[in-house]
Amino acid sequence: MKTLSENRAFGGVQGVYSHASTACGCDMTFGLFLPEEAEREPVPVVWYLSGLTCTHENAMVKAGAQKWAATEGVALVFPDTSPRGEGVANDAAYDLGQGAGFYVNATEKPWAPHFRMWDYVTEELPRLLFSAFPVDEARQAITGHSMGGHGALTIAMSFPGRFRSVSAFAPIANPTASDWGRKQFAAYLGKDEAKWAAHDATLLMKKRGFDGPILIDQGASDQFLDLLKPEALAEAMMARRQNGAFRMQKGYDHSYFFVSTFMEDHIGFHASALYA
Amino acid sequence: MKTLSENRAFGGVQGVYSHASTACGCDMTFGLFLPEEAEREPVPVVWYLSGLTCTHENAMVKAGAQKWAATEGVALVFPDTSPRGEGVANDAAYDLGQGAGFYVNATEKPWAPHFRMWDYVTEELPRLLFSAFPVDEARQAITGHSMGGHGALTIAMSFPGRFRSVSAFAPIANPTASDWGRKQFAAYLGKDEAKWAAHDATLLMKKRGFDGPILIDQGASDQFLDLLKPEALAEAMMARRQNGAFRMQKGYDHSYFFVSTFMEDHIGFHASALYA
Repeated sequence: MKTLSENRAFGGVQGVYSHASTACGCDMTFGLFLPEEAEREPVPVVWYLSGLTCTHENAMVKAGAQKWAATEGVALVFPDTSPRGEGVANDAAYDLGQGAGFYVNATEKPWAPHFRMWDYVTEELPRLLFSAFPVDEARQAITGHSMGGHGALTIAMSFPGRFRSVSAFAPIANPTASDWGRKQFAAYLGKDEAKWAAHDATLLMKKRGFDGPILIDQGASDQFLDLLKPEALAEAMMARRQNGAFRMQKGYDHSYFFVSTFMEDHIGFHASALYA
Repeated sequence: MKTLSENRAFGGVQGVYSHASTACGCDMTFGLFLPEEAEREPVPVVWYLSGLTCTHENAMVKAGAQKWAATEGVALVFPDTSPRGEGVANDAAYDLGQGAGFYVNATEKPWAPHFRMWDYVTEELPRLLFSAFPVDEARQAITGHSMGGHGALTIAMSFPGRFRSVSAFAPIANPTASDWGRKQFAAYLGKDEAKWAAHDATLLMKKRGFDGPILIDQGASDQFLDLLKPEALAEAMMARRQNGAFRMQKGYDHSYFFVSTFMEDHIGFHASALYA
């Protein structure tokens, strides 16, 4: 593992690190914010999964999360959104290939050799994180934005007991019924839609739900609402009697201005679960 | 109008008043809490509509709302849930007749002569309230519990511009699809289901929504969830991109213990709109 940068921030340290990833078959970069408390003891961690076109860096510099993580004494980890590099397959579209891993393990050509973001985020990066940093594996929470909200919700529901809480900002809520999902699942997972269901938050909510609280914020002026399909997930949450809240925020769009506005609520929400 | 009682409470006055109602053709009783500020100037008002079997008194003594209304400087009005008295039709069931007005104007026998709770709550009682008490007609909000949540939501959406905010505790959210609704609408409004639609919060949300914020709390352990149908309203709210939040509260049931737990949030929510 290489340290690319470390900066003092809000009394803690914002680091950026790279490592050779077995899951993705390339070097991967991630950001990690450790609050001051981590100098003395392992701290709880909130995973932040980013959206389409993002690297590890976008949320790290634009989401305004470190302030609240420092206040609450929690770490933040910012993984990249896909494998990258010259030897890695890509597509001219912004929503497929590099920057658009969709948090799945690709089984189809040309994506299968590198696009294994599910394994990377749920197995390889956690092993590295918990062995190399003062972060408490027993106290994890997860959030994300857009494609990253999709990742946070599907991962949280797929690993019962791992995460105490999950939240999302404008998640892709029902990708098997959206052009943000059908295109990518067909490319990465193949035409058999039965294999897509494990990566759809609405379908997972109907099937099993989440054993902890959920908080979802969605901007009512989001330019991608028709692709995100919040109504499908809201219906599934309430039909399941899922502990949680779904909030439609008037006037907010899909940007990091929206994310940063409600970040305090989300970090506070996770801290309540992590320090319960 | 007769003053039945007035008690000092949280620096203000909790009163109970009765008057001869033209809409209902009988005497009607209501509770009104005025905060201390009302001694000096008209204050905003939050309407609280109660649920099945309740009189004006239940929420007044069990919801714990006066404390927060005093803190925020808002009045609370607690109407009864139906006409009452020996000359008023009734039914042996708890969910029809006296204590179960459902906030509609009955057109069918034997209910039509007295069961006009829609007119009572939206016309007659407001006229009395705004002429007799220091309450500001330009700043109204509305909430309610169960059948009263149904009333609050349907009334708020039916009078655009009248209420700045609406909230509900465990509302009957889709009565045209529930035994809490179909039975009563058939009795009060007749068999023509087209006439029921104006009294269904989910259908009104699909049709027109609400021009302000909405807050809904629902207990996940509510014993009446199958009758309340929160998932239908949550889906309709998010499909419409309605400004608002739908919260599923783990472990809470249908009682006033649930209502009183979240009353602070609701009064604070309304005060934000009323003092904006």
